[in-house]
Amino acid sequence: MLRASVYVTLRPGILDPQGETIRASLQRLGHAEVEAVRVGKYLELDLRTEDRNAAEQSVTRMCDALLANPVIEDYAIEIMDGESTCSLE
Amino acid sequence: MLRASVYVTLRPGILDPQGETIRASLQRLGHAEVEAVRVGKYLELDLRTEDRNAAEQSVTRMCDALLANPVIEDYAIEIMDGESTCSLE
Repeated sequence: MLRASVYVTLRPGILDPQGETIRASLQRLGHAEVEAVRVGKYLELDLRTEDRNAAEQSVTRMCDALLANPVIEDYAIEIMDGESTCSLE
Repeated sequence: MLRASVYVTLRPGILDPQGETIRASLQRLGHAEVEAVRVGKYLELDLRTEDRNAAEQSVTRMCDALLANPVIEDYAIEIMDGESTCSLE
């Protein structure tokens, strides 16, 4: 079992109104040091395979077909062992 | 200038209908190896400060107040130099 982490971000130059709204809200909450906020998606996929290369190619196809909009979004993929606990905990 | 990366994920046990929909769509696209998908948010914040400890405490307060819903979401914070190019490119 492998786990893929996928980070989907807006391409440079694409307007991010959600990020701008969050920045304004943070400033109203007193966080004047926040200069910019960009919002993206973070996905974790559990994959029934042990082949890292095949997994990476497969997740790349998933990103191009469904997970990201290549016109306005970039993505990055990380493949790790699924047995390890989630890196976010 | 520092950059903070914030990963917001649903807590274990919280239903993720968006992730389940994506998993079903990926299976229809032929990716039968996908066992589970979880969807979270990924935020990048540019901070006008050079103090990493202060930045981390400040971003923790932002997460508790606005960026995450602590009832159903976990978050993780990474602080890095803002001058470096985006780690996702």
